[in-house]
Amino acid sequence: MIVTHLEPPYFAVIFTTLLSNDQTDYQSTAMRMKELAEQQEGYLGMESARGDLGITVSYWKDLSSITNWKHHLEHSEARTRGKQQWYSQYQLIICKVERAYGFEK
Amino acid sequence: MIVTHLEPPYFAVIFTTLLSNDQTDYQSTAMRMKELAEQQEGYLGMESARGDLGITVSYWKDLSSITNWKHHLEHSEARTRGKQQWYSQYQLIICKVERAYGFEK
Repeated sequence: MIVTHLEPPYFAVIFTTLLSNDQTDYQSTAMRMKELAEQQEGYLGMESARGDLGITVSYWKDLSSITNWKHHLEHSEARTRGKQQWYSQYQLIICKVERAYGFEK
Repeated sequence: MIVTHLEPPYFAVIFTTLLSNDQTDYQSTAMRMKELAEQQEGYLGMESARGDLGITVSYWKDLSSITNWKHHLEHSEARTRGKQQWYSQYQLIICKVERAYGFEK
């Protein structure tokens, strides 16, 4: 679902990934991370898509919410496992949303 | 391909879409827009993925590059057709990249 009706300024984390051959526990962990993220202070929403590469964008109220989520123990453990096992490459970008335009039929 | 090795600050445009039933000329136009974007001053790269929704992130040197691309005639025409025909919903977000972390095996 597209995350709409947020008022800038807010923050976006763009997480772009290439998967490795070993996807053991990846789906269940990704679902658990989504569930956990939704419980965090300052979380505003998330969008995901996967083709050759995967793109997940999560939206946050401020930078400190993103930092707190980064340091969440279960999230840190999943990140470590992601590097060891699930991802051959990734890029994580933190940005400040300046403008947003929506269109809906 | 993941766009890597850019040095903040730069800008990201996150374009999240839900497609309608009429996709006539959509693929060829999307390819043409990618080709055209790559020729624009200030263009730095693009990533795309599609599942239930599509996410395309393009990267730009500055806000004026994004504005120039927005006003490009062929791009404007494609956008109009997108609203009429290809998309049931979309969200376009312009943001300033503050931090970027990469990982590669």
